[in-house]
Amino acid sequence: MPRRGAAAGLEYKMVLVVRGELRLTAGKAAVQAAHAAVMLYQQAEKRGAGALDAWLREGQRKIALVVPTLDELEALERAARGRGIATVWVEDAGFTEVPPGTRTCLGLGPAPTSDLDPLTGSLSLL
Amino acid sequence: MPRRGAAAGLEYKMVLVVRGELRLTAGKAAVQAAHAAVMLYQQAEKRGAGALDAWLREGQRKIALVVPTLDELEALERAARGRGIATVWVEDAGFTEVPPGTRTCLGLGPAPTSDLDPLTGSLSLL
Repeated sequence: MPRRGAAAGLEYKMVLVVRGELRLTAGKAAVQAAHAAVMLYQQAEKRGAGALDAWLREGQRKIALVVPTLDELEALERAARGRGIATVWVEDAGFTEVPPGTRTCLGLGPAPTSDLDPLTGSLSLL
Repeated sequence: MPRRGAAAGLEYKMVLVVRGELRLTAGKAAVQAAHAAVMLYQQAEKRGAGALDAWLREGQRKIALVVPTLDELEALERAARGRGIATVWVEDAGFTEVPPGTRTCLGLGPAPTSDLDPLTGSLSLL
């Protein structure tokens, strides 16, 4: 049976992956995910990425996941770049909760779910 | 004593207000906040809003808050519009957790903190 997203014709998404070991509050994690989403949007716009239009037409689907450690997040970023998926790092300005410059979140996409799912399909939901 | 944001010269922000009564998971709340942030960004870009450049220069500050009910969220939206603050509603496509079309989040800004704080300064952090 097709998955729900596939059935609805949703082929593009953004994946926002928060660093679990930082134990951010829900609000702080939401802000890091929102930073990543805006940065990915800006990047896609500058590049004139075709995926951006498709993603917007589909209702700008996003999903928020969590990966425990920075090492795992960095490995995910390398794997994504290796597949030509757009990536951004969010570094916190450090006003609250974590020191300045801490990598808090990795953003991926917008990209086809068929490219993203092999990398992120087994990760936990935030 | 000046507040930390004021001391650091941060004068603009986005405020992302999630509807508490929906009791969304952290991940779902993060996605709604990220939707609001991208929609506010698109809206500000289309309008050529001067606040957008200032906000980007300052590191695109965002804050995630929570308001219990839709009534309170709607009252906040009316008050913000009354002050000329840009607003967006996030309506969930309803793939998970809530029915399609449910208003999940209100986005405000980017706008001067001096305009936002009288409306949102007393709300709870997400």
